[in-house]
Amino acid sequence: MCVFVREREMMKHYCIQFIISISVFTFAYSISTHPNTNLGSSSIFNTGDHNSNHHFTHTPVHPLDPLTVPEINNIRSILAAYEPFASSFPSVNTLSLDEPDKSQVLGWKTGDPLPSRRASVICVLDGQTRILTVDLVLNVVTHDVVSIGAGYPMLTNEDQIIASEVLFKDLEFNKSILARGVDFKDLVCGSSSPGWFGPDEEGKRIVKVQCFSGQNTPNYYMRPIEGLTVIVDVDKREIVKITDTGRDIPIPKETNTDYLYTTKNHFPDITPETNPMSMEQRKGPSFTVENGHTVKWANWVFHLKPDIRAGMIISQAMILGENGEYRSVMYKGFASEIFVPYMDPDEAWYFKSYLDVGEYGLGATAMSLVELNDCPRYSYYMDGVFASADGRPYIQPNMICIFERYAGDIGWRHSEIPAMGFDIRESRPKMTLVARMVSSVRNYDYIFDWEFQTDGVIRIKVGLSGMLLVKATPYENLSNISDTDEMTGTLVSENVIGVVHDHYISFRLDMDIDGTNNSFAEVNLVKEETLPGQSPRKSYLKARRKVAKTEDDAKINLKLYDPSEFHVFNPSRKSRLGNPTGYKIVPGGTAASLLDHDDPPQIRAAVTNNQIWVTQYNKSEEWAGGLLVSQSKGDDTIDVWSARNREIENKDIVLWYTLGFHHIPCQEDFPVMPTASSSFELKPVNFFDRNPILNAKPTFQKDLPVCFATTSY
Amino acid sequence: MCVFVREREMMKHYCIQFIISISVFTFAYSISTHPNTNLGSSSIFNTGDHNSNHHFTHTPVHPLDPLTVPEINNIRSILAAYEPFASSFPSVNTLSLDEPDKSQVLGWKTGDPLPSRRASVICVLDGQTRILTVDLVLNVVTHDVVSIGAGYPMLTNEDQIIASEVLFKDLEFNKSILARGVDFKDLVCGSSSPGWFGPDEEGKRIVKVQCFSGQNTPNYYMRPIEGLTVIVDVDKREIVKITDTGRDIPIPKETNTDYLYTTKNHFPDITPETNPMSMEQRKGPSFTVENGHTVKWANWVFHLKPDIRAGMIISQAMILGENGEYRSVMYKGFASEIFVPYMDPDEAWYFKSYLDVGEYGLGATAMSLVELNDCPRYSYYMDGVFASADGRPYIQPNMICIFERYAGDIGWRHSEIPAMGFDIRESRPKMTLVARMVSSVRNYDYIFDWEFQTDGVIRIKVGLSGMLLVKATPYENLSNISDTDEMTGTLVSENVIGVVHDHYISFRLDMDIDGTNNSFAEVNLVKEETLPGQSPRKSYLKARRKVAKTEDDAKINLKLYDPSEFHVFNPSRKSRLGNPTGYKIVPGGTAASLLDHDDPPQIRAAVTNNQIWVTQYNKSEEWAGGLLVSQSKGDDTIDVWSARNREIENKDIVLWYTLGFHHIPCQEDFPVMPTASSSFELKPVNFFDRNPILNAKPTFQKDLPVCFATTSY
Repeated sequence: MCVFVREREMMKHYCIQFIISISVFTFAYSISTHPNTNLGSSSIFNTGDHNSNHHFTHTPVHPLDPLTVPEINNIRSILAAYEPFASSFPSVNTLSLDEPDKSQVLGWKTGDPLPSRRASVICVLDGQTRILTVDLVLNVVTHDVVSIGAGYPMLTNEDQIIASEVLFKDLEFNKSILARGVDFKDLVCGSSSPGWFGPDEEGKRIVKVQCFSGQNTPNYYMRPIEGLTVIVDVDKREIVKITDTGRDIPIPKETNTDYLYTTKNHFPDITPETNPMSMEQRKGPSFTVENGHTVKWANWVFHLKPDIRAGMIISQAMILGENGEYRSVMYKGFASEIFVPYMDPDEAWYFKSYLDVGEYGLGATAMSLVELNDCPRYSYYMDGVFASADGRPYIQPNMICIFERYAGDIGWRHSEIPAMGFDIRESRPKMTLVARMVSSVRNYDYIFDWEFQTDGVIRIKVGLSGMLLVKATPYENLSNISDTDEMTGTLVSENVIGVVHDHYISFRLDMDIDGTNNSFAEVNLVKEETLPGQSPRKSYLKARRKVAKTEDDAKINLKLYDPSEFHVFNPSRKSRLGNPTGYKIVPGGTAASLLDHDDPPQIRAAVTNNQIWVTQYNKSEEWAGGLLVSQSKGDDTIDVWSARNREIENKDIVLWYTLGFHHIPCQEDFPVMPTASSSFELKPVNFFDRNPILNAKPTFQKDLPVCFATTSY
Repeated sequence: MCVFVREREMMKHYCIQFIISISVFTFAYSISTHPNTNLGSSSIFNTGDHNSNHHFTHTPVHPLDPLTVPEINNIRSILAAYEPFASSFPSVNTLSLDEPDKSQVLGWKTGDPLPSRRASVICVLDGQTRILTVDLVLNVVTHDVVSIGAGYPMLTNEDQIIASEVLFKDLEFNKSILARGVDFKDLVCGSSSPGWFGPDEEGKRIVKVQCFSGQNTPNYYMRPIEGLTVIVDVDKREIVKITDTGRDIPIPKETNTDYLYTTKNHFPDITPETNPMSMEQRKGPSFTVENGHTVKWANWVFHLKPDIRAGMIISQAMILGENGEYRSVMYKGFASEIFVPYMDPDEAWYFKSYLDVGEYGLGATAMSLVELNDCPRYSYYMDGVFASADGRPYIQPNMICIFERYAGDIGWRHSEIPAMGFDIRESRPKMTLVARMVSSVRNYDYIFDWEFQTDGVIRIKVGLSGMLLVKATPYENLSNISDTDEMTGTLVSENVIGVVHDHYISFRLDMDIDGTNNSFAEVNLVKEETLPGQSPRKSYLKARRKVAKTEDDAKINLKLYDPSEFHVFNPSRKSRLGNPTGYKIVPGGTAASLLDHDDPPQIRAAVTNNQIWVTQYNKSEEWAGGLLVSQSKGDDTIDVWSARNREIENKDIVLWYTLGFHHIPCQEDFPVMPTASSSFELKPVNFFDRNPILNAKPTFQKDLPVCFATTSY
């Protein structure tokens, strides 16, 4: 119980400090202050002896390699010497590689000198958002644009600190907290993005602060102080408005909210334990990671890097063709935006319509993965190298893991009934490679998997776990509630409502099938009626292929009763048989946004108006909700870009797909949610002349390891 | 190459014998003739030393245990002594347990005497289909009904032999074959069900025979003799009609068709090998199989048995509740029917609208699983015990496998940004249990997985592999084809078209949530508009719960833009908070049948008119396409039963779900298809008072095994 007590104490401390925790977090891993090798030492999990010294001297070897520690330090010096920042250094929001033009990257070969390295910097000074380009060869700022749009960048750590300071100094706020009978040492407050809902809140950078009680639980999310919302202007450092409507709503009790392993004895554990398993390879994993970012496995090679905003970026994914040469499949793929609208019009809830990628950042919220639990044994871990608000580099250790998977599945197989004792029983085990990252955007944990298969399929899977965002209610049992129709969610515990919400994860997939000149075809399955006397069959389906000319032709709403395949193909590259070589996108279980198209949250998340979009390639169009998303009016979304209705036939095109979840919470989601997943696939269609895994080798007994208990047990 | 040659010779033999191969197969494993331990000895895979002696003495211990070898022998004696069969023994089509009434099974406890054992026998005598019930206590036939409906049972082995004999004796047929220049030693013919297309073919049991060339390839499916169809009356033992329209269509060459591992050197193999993997547990698997059929794992217990028609039946699936007692989830679940319509109206193709479960049987076509490849190491294998056409028992060894899975996934997790060096990094690995069976229905391989999760989820997954059913064409390249719009499929090799088709797998899910009295609710997410001034938000979603009164209320077509959850719940059992305890069905990627509802194939496969149906429990309503499906008119389908529109509120109800695939073939499907999968879930919704895996144990280094290379390597 000693650990438990220690944790409790720290938890209290933690709660008080929560509002500035992002800041603490950042500095905690600034190389200038803490060597990151300390990370995880306080964890109950063995995170291994992670050595980051190489980061101090690392130099990029690939045009797409992320900025290194030395480069970030250099950029900071350049910015510090930059005249406009002479008096005061700006608050750095994002500082990342300004990737070379596609043509430069495609032209580059191993051994060539790298295209000149540039950084793109978004920072805030005196309430102004500036977008700079820093040239690392010339060592100067080459571009400096002051944003005049409505949108602001992600909240900075300073903004969080300011909000907390302003908050605790305010008399009315303190009264409200006292009125709830919450001890300040138990108070946990978090500031979130306010969305955009018209002129009232325009022209100033604000956050909306809401609080929880962390008394006797690490899971303060389940103990909301309902109805208390504080709007803080982070530039003027003042409170704009306090709404306190929920004083008659009790704060839910801590009962059953704790989920920590070290305190599991708080719960009855009646499920028999399963024996631990691990995926073992007696010859070790089959993949290699060259120069820290180039992943090679089976017939695949791709570039993988952490990104402060996208979390994880896959670049130049190529697969071996039958001639033994790598063929291009995708130039770049990543999660471009996430839309999370909650379905409650109340004052304290209506604004919860988060755009997690642009407002919080999937890399900024990605934590170190838990070895053996977030990722299996023999995983390769990749660190994130980012810049903190002061422009200094920091390391996010073990941010991405890469592992090989055998889940007992079958790659292909066929059996035939034997005659004269001879039978056909061919079967091949299915092996895949997974690149994984997890972002904890406040209460929610998003698990991102990019899974590569030897049959050419790429499966992109998103899993949701973590905690619900819950609403306190006076009711303890459904039987007390007269009109359950008026509830905006499910009663998941006494006084706790899990509010209905959606999740939409929009991926930007810059497909380059055998080159950059691609087209998009909708292969529609249409019912044909037979002619009288033609056939005893009355109807059958026929595949009708329609190539999209412009962006408007490729705005797709999926329809179960009007089904299509969606192909990206290279019109100038044919298979042996004359079929165009392509890849299709195969949607999995999904959901569509049903909000009014003119509802402010939907305007900003217009990418969810369709499940599929195809746009003409434009280097600057990477973020489906816009570059500067906080409080944006939705004037920089994919919907706006594609209004130009550009040509997309035989052009460099980008495929956009949105994975959707409707979430009606249930009691099983309390106090922490079992992972719910959905996925989609990128699948070769006449890209190969035949089944590319025809020659996959079966597994034989002799190939498998002999395993023993560890001596340490 | 010695193996290769040996196989070739046998292959030739095999090809000639193909048409009677089912028969050979059956006798080959009749215990009376061959001990099944010989099985697989000719395989290149080590199938282990499978011992079946226990089958000779096995006695049932659970009311749902399948018929045993002694019971089947006993039944055969009873039938032989049965007066109507005195002169000639009927051809036994199916002979399986007539399960006791649900109330008897639910009332039974371990140790109680078994309810009296009865067998249901479907057999054919003098062209008449008879359905008998045999009482194994009284040792008599208690019921004997002669079918007067249009439908016939599955093709029997005798029917196959008859068809082959009739065929080879026919001069016109022999001429046709000679005209194609096919050597008879290379000839492979198979008889398939003709479907039903009106009066022309009614009143007689017929099969449609089509042939292939097996010259120089085990993959004769890729070498069709196009346009030659022979209709055989298997009772009159005569040819009804020969259609030969394709003499000008070349038989596709054998090039690139061979997929056998032993001949893989026929292909370039440029993909680097991946190292073999296995899922290892140093304490061994966590599941047990009691008395051959009762599977216990983690918080689950269920009864599992092979079935000649359904393939695999899961019964009495129960999960531990928080009070430590097992709670009922599902009484019985299995694949009830499969519909596979091909989309080509030609004379030789229009009738291909197979109902695989009723016409071929998933158990009858399930072969022994390939160890280490179809199923991972440490799998438990279950044999099928069936009756052959002569009423004698035979064993299908290793027909089902059960294994525990760890695929590197996360059961639940949450991280939080640390303050003062303390962080929250909780994560739990996800372990599941899989029961798997594979049916090879001629060219197609269906992989069935029932996956049980500790969070209460049951995932039912179907994977498709094997070979395409292809059509020969004069064309070798798309550039030769003037009107590609008229093609009924994709050119997947020279002279080979992969014809567009669908697959629909309909599951019968007798859900019993905490008892037999259940209801079905559609929880519809509807868009609500806010009132002027009510909220800055214009719209939000609200969950509207509607309980179905009758079967008509529960005929569901899924709609992406009108989404719902679908709950089966127990109206008299509430959660701690007053929520009804239930399970929801979560559809995955699916497809809907678009054929005319009055098209003969669709009438017989009316179960695919909706994705979801709910019917009032009726023991006799198990087969969605009818009990006797061959040539049936569709007068015994779920559509007919539910026309009665029975009450389903607070009744014993059955949930039906159809998983769908549209398949537009591509070159990657040649010569053997990489597995394509889809799945759906049964997921607890307020069934548990909280996350049932809250206490799952993390994996620690010390729990994992130490593995070495095997010495044999």
